[in-house]
Amino acid sequence: MNNPVPKPQRFHSVTGLRPEKADYYIGLHAAPWPGVIRAIERAKIRNYSIAVKEIEGRLCLFSYFEYVGEDFEGDMKQMADDPETQRWWRETDPCQIPLPDAAARGTIWADASEVFHTP
Amino acid sequence: MNNPVPKPQRFHSVTGLRPEKADYYIGLHAAPWPGVIRAIERAKIRNYSIAVKEIEGRLCLFSYFEYVGEDFEGDMKQMADDPETQRWWRETDPCQIPLPDAAARGTIWADASEVFHTP
Repeated sequence: MNNPVPKPQRFHSVTGLRPEKADYYIGLHAAPWPGVIRAIERAKIRNYSIAVKEIEGRLCLFSYFEYVGEDFEGDMKQMADDPETQRWWRETDPCQIPLPDAAARGTIWADASEVFHTP
Repeated sequence: MNNPVPKPQRFHSVTGLRPEKADYYIGLHAAPWPGVIRAIERAKIRNYSIAVKEIEGRLCLFSYFEYVGEDFEGDMKQMADDPETQRWWRETDPCQIPLPDAAARGTIWADASEVFHTP
């Protein structure tokens, strides 16, 4: 018996945003580079959004996206290998302050655990 | 000329979760009451999810949903007037620690600002 993963898979994650880089980060995301959007689509990510909120004096970024493919690791690797995405991340990474668990893994975004979803 | 709001409208929000109530809150949301789900549907909310993540020793809840109706305030008021939803909130409200801006408005969830969305 196959036990297929329900689709889409939803991913929530969190990172910090440097106050002095907030305007730059938000400006980049208000007009994202077309090549970056194409790489997201090729990675089978849909309905991807990022929100910002100050929590106790700390700016936090929250991301939500849906993954509709069959090979998450492979698709994420393909996106990470995309030169335009790498250029984008060279702009965005210095704007962000990873949470300790993400920093320990060498990543920017820390996974959040979904506790509820409407059927 | 009408200038219709693009649909769906996406809403992101944040609140705190009391550590001593986290298991209870998560358990409630793992098996939400059918009447609460029906009220969410009647309020024209779709694809509603909540995630949890510890940030600097503080548990935070992040919600994402899409609103597909024409009268957000009216639909939210109808949901708030639903007796089953009111019973649910009597269980969930004491689990949560509103951020200061939400507390000042007498609400539980504080709005986060969307900075990015894939087309």
